[in-house]
Amino acid sequence: MRESELIADICKHNAELAACGGAEVLLAPGDDMALVKLAGLRVLVAADQVIAGRHFAAGTPMDQIARKALARNISDIAAMAGVPACAVATVALPAAMPDHEVRALAEGLRAAALVFQCPVVGGDIGTHAAADGALVVSVSVLAEPGPTGRVVTRAGACVGDLLCVTGTLGDGWRSDGSGRHLSFTPRIAEALALVEALGDRLHAMIDISDGLARDAGHLATASGLAVRIDGAQLPCAAGAGWQAAVGTGEDYELAFACAGQPPSSVAGTPVTVVGRFQEPGGARVSVCIGTEEHDVSALGWEHG
Amino acid sequence: MRESELIADICKHNAELAACGGAEVLLAPGDDMALVKLAGLRVLVAADQVIAGRHFAAGTPMDQIARKALARNISDIAAMAGVPACAVATVALPAAMPDHEVRALAEGLRAAALVFQCPVVGGDIGTHAAADGALVVSVSVLAEPGPTGRVVTRAGACVGDLLCVTGTLGDGWRSDGSGRHLSFTPRIAEALALVEALGDRLHAMIDISDGLARDAGHLATASGLAVRIDGAQLPCAAGAGWQAAVGTGEDYELAFACAGQPPSSVAGTPVTVVGRFQEPGGARVSVCIGTEEHDVSALGWEHG
Repeated sequence: MRESELIADICKHNAELAACGGAEVLLAPGDDMALVKLAGLRVLVAADQVIAGRHFAAGTPMDQIARKALARNISDIAAMAGVPACAVATVALPAAMPDHEVRALAEGLRAAALVFQCPVVGGDIGTHAAADGALVVSVSVLAEPGPTGRVVTRAGACVGDLLCVTGTLGDGWRSDGSGRHLSFTPRIAEALALVEALGDRLHAMIDISDGLARDAGHLATASGLAVRIDGAQLPCAAGAGWQAAVGTGEDYELAFACAGQPPSSVAGTPVTVVGRFQEPGGARVSVCIGTEEHDVSALGWEHG
Repeated sequence: MRESELIADICKHNAELAACGGAEVLLAPGDDMALVKLAGLRVLVAADQVIAGRHFAAGTPMDQIARKALARNISDIAAMAGVPACAVATVALPAAMPDHEVRALAEGLRAAALVFQCPVVGGDIGTHAAADGALVVSVSVLAEPGPTGRVVTRAGACVGDLLCVTGTLGDGWRSDGSGRHLSFTPRIAEALALVEALGDRLHAMIDISDGLARDAGHLATASGLAVRIDGAQLPCAAGAGWQAAVGTGEDYELAFACAGQPPSSVAGTPVTVVGRFQEPGGARVSVCIGTEEHDVSALGWEHG
């Protein structure tokens, strides 16, 4: 079963959440983060993990693994235009992991917390029964809405809205495990600047973790629309073609829907118009290359 | 390296947290939960995990695994006298796990959320590279202080305070993986009732996840004291001797320090006085059996 199917299955039960008691759930599973209300205060919350052999290759330095585990979550905060508040982490260690590597992992989380201004305030350290059990680092983050109070979701794109992206695409993850996914800077500042600059013209947003085709598809689906990408406009990273730019995961740039032209850059990062939202029907996500239109609705990165 | 050593190492750096930005950290790593301040609101946050082969045996039904993963966290909320708000979860699945088991795990989390009144509002589903990778379920919870606003920590026990426990001890975890750890009810109602009944006489509290010897030791250490347990008073579960009652992990009862006598029961659960806090010096935690005093400071359950 693919993650997306299971998530769809879980989201079917969102109506139950209200019956659960506990916090009021303002935004349930299905977006980059959930939004809950605690004693009148809106809090964003999300969890994400990295698994050895899936999200990082054997031999990746511990500080880079720790950084990525936190950065993935910070990128989800950016997608909602939130501001990081704090994080908690659990780590499941291979039984044979030497002490100096465990310490390096803890140091790496601490260093990343400083960089991303998101203190790691608690968690749990466990050990696999197996000497070679796969290292799993799971991080949960809390965030607050930014200064305007606006939380931007995946839903809300309108027909005619422009699909825009920050930065460059296609070099997040390489098949050997290298790539920007180990060193990217989540686009918190860019997201807050977009809210500030575009105001109500910013209709929907997501971070590109599964590839632009899939993530623009998430925007389209949540908004009940289709989206057409202009292949010639894609800000391809050096060495990346259009397929890599829309199909590679882990770019951790922002994709957003906006009414009218966006600024050409925000917080020092270029912004590129790469497509347009349109009425549903035909391909949910397509890429136009010259006169050809490629259906890429099924393309993209499933982490598994 | 044992978990306790690493946590001690991590706690050394708690002063750094303030420099991190993000939320104000009112209570840093080292207690059952962290306490942070978000826009003036105090929020409790914690994370805990269950790992196949460590926290549950092969063949344990998925709904019990899911329940335990959430219940462990709810027990941490009880330890602070908090009220559950919401949870997020990540699961790392063996690649060969059949779909119906994945669905049973998701169903189990949903069912547990209803029981514990703690909606699971988000998370991530990942798959190990290995067919037989160990299932890891990591859950993070948010909680609010109870109606009185009081948050009870591990620190604060005074010389002469009574060490008290709820329920019975020693049958949480059996060597074959069975035991109450798969079915216990976290002591949320009991904790809130203790705050109500004892007021300022309730000095410190913890949940018993590592065995009473170790967890009473945490109270003693956090309070700068020693604690002496009267073996004859221990409310041993059927079939459990005093060693099991103080040494077995995963009872998930509450242990607390109180000035003067506690009520004999709270929220329908018996309360037993089992010891007394005293000046440090000699054994940090001891158990008196007749005229013999056993140093059990090094006893107890390290999950690994």
